[in-house]
Amino acid sequence: MELLKIFKIGGHIINDGNALESFLTELAHIEGRKLLVHGGGKMASDIGRSFGIEPQVSNGRSITDGHTLMVVTMVYAGLINKTIVGLLNAKGARAVGICGADNLAFPGRRLSADNIDYGFVADLNTETVNSIFLSELLSSAIPVIAPITADSEGTLLNVNADTVAATLAIALSKNFKTELYFCFEKDGIYKEFNNENKLIPDIKGKEIKELKSSKAIELSLHPKLENAERALSSGVSKVVVCNYRNIQKALKGEPEAGTYIYG
Amino acid sequence: MELLKIFKIGGHIINDGNALESFLTELAHIEGRKLLVHGGGKMASDIGRSFGIEPQVSNGRSITDGHTLMVVTMVYAGLINKTIVGLLNAKGARAVGICGADNLAFPGRRLSADNIDYGFVADLNTETVNSIFLSELLSSAIPVIAPITADSEGTLLNVNADTVAATLAIALSKNFKTELYFCFEKDGIYKEFNNENKLIPDIKGKEIKELKSSKAIELSLHPKLENAERALSSGVSKVVVCNYRNIQKALKGEPEAGTYIYG
Repeated sequence: MELLKIFKIGGHIINDGNALESFLTELAHIEGRKLLVHGGGKMASDIGRSFGIEPQVSNGRSITDGHTLMVVTMVYAGLINKTIVGLLNAKGARAVGICGADNLAFPGRRLSADNIDYGFVADLNTETVNSIFLSELLSSAIPVIAPITADSEGTLLNVNADTVAATLAIALSKNFKTELYFCFEKDGIYKEFNNENKLIPDIKGKEIKELKSSKAIELSLHPKLENAERALSSGVSKVVVCNYRNIQKALKGEPEAGTYIYG
Repeated sequence: MELLKIFKIGGHIINDGNALESFLTELAHIEGRKLLVHGGGKMASDIGRSFGIEPQVSNGRSITDGHTLMVVTMVYAGLINKTIVGLLNAKGARAVGICGADNLAFPGRRLSADNIDYGFVADLNTETVNSIFLSELLSSAIPVIAPITADSEGTLLNVNADTVAATLAIALSKNFKTELYFCFEKDGIYKEFNNENKLIPDIKGKEIKELKSSKAIELSLHPKLENAERALSSGVSKVVVCNYRNIQKALKGEPEAGTYIYG
């Protein structure tokens, strides 16, 4: 099967124009089929604040009321998505920006968990991913995916970008050998909270539960670990958590280029 | 050649939730290939004002500074585009929302005319429309097009939505028999300024220059007339300016359902 590399970039890269520019230059030159999922937390929070909306978080997940939904739809699916698409095209790559609502690429349903009302937040289902549409896009361009979707009523919903990346990696693993790269501003997953000298070079999927419960890993990384675990147990061949600056090394599998997670 | 109907809806329909809902219900049930271009002026202006940005206009065209560009990208390509896509999907149609930057669907170049600096505003070229990509989208969904694009440097640009509709109609007339419907809150083009009893039932393309110079037609309709003239002289078979409530009648060619413009 053909290789497909799925990259997820988070808020810190997007907020720093130079970081984004340099990551996209690398991405445009990576060989083969690839797909980019972006978040954009801080920019949405800043713009939300200018409307008087303060971001709310519970268990590492955003709580999205109607106004916040409006802001994240504008910022994620509009400003960030089209900025990335414009930059990739200018670098000679072809990019198409979409969200989960487009051609029902990854339809959502309203999240309800732990008796907390998360508001307009979606859970995803790998079974309902429109992999025909995504494969079509992949044949001519880099799909650039904003973490927004809609439910069957047409209500727009916010969705965790790590979850989008893992869900698409799983769904597309039927058509491609998929690898998932979580790229952010840290060098990988550390053994002790923010101790940069204790990078974990590799993790086996089955060790993830223990790592989480040992509390050695900071809470904000738990969604990445859960998504990695889920992806590896459902057809994804490799998950890498790495610094966006080390993406070339991580693609080559160089040691210490990030944390490699295997099934 | 297969028929393609291109619809353009403006700000008033988008600002009125019921009007938008009812138009999209009609659209979802129209047979055959179709494409929707949307504007969204008032919503962008309102959101812009909440950031302290006052809209500027010159000769009926928006002047777009950096902040305004940010706002229109968020509102057009984000909020409005994905709201429409979500609603169409919920009505059983398949819709994909894009802008001109996506897969270089309709790349822009910075507008410079009449010694006025319009800021981040694009002119379009029918020759550079990516009709292969648009035809692919048309085979499985309704493309929903936001009036935003990018130039070859990747700079995002604002573009007049009537111009987008006419440019796509012209470019796609090589692959389809294209008809262009400008749908808004008026019943068509009136002979005297806002005199609703004087609807012009039909216009020949060559009469447009005279109509414009006679000053019988309000200035805000001039871009529509210019785009109609350009479309009809470049392969588009029919242009209709009509009330969005009359779209079914206008599609059937019923008299008084709008102003029919022929080449």
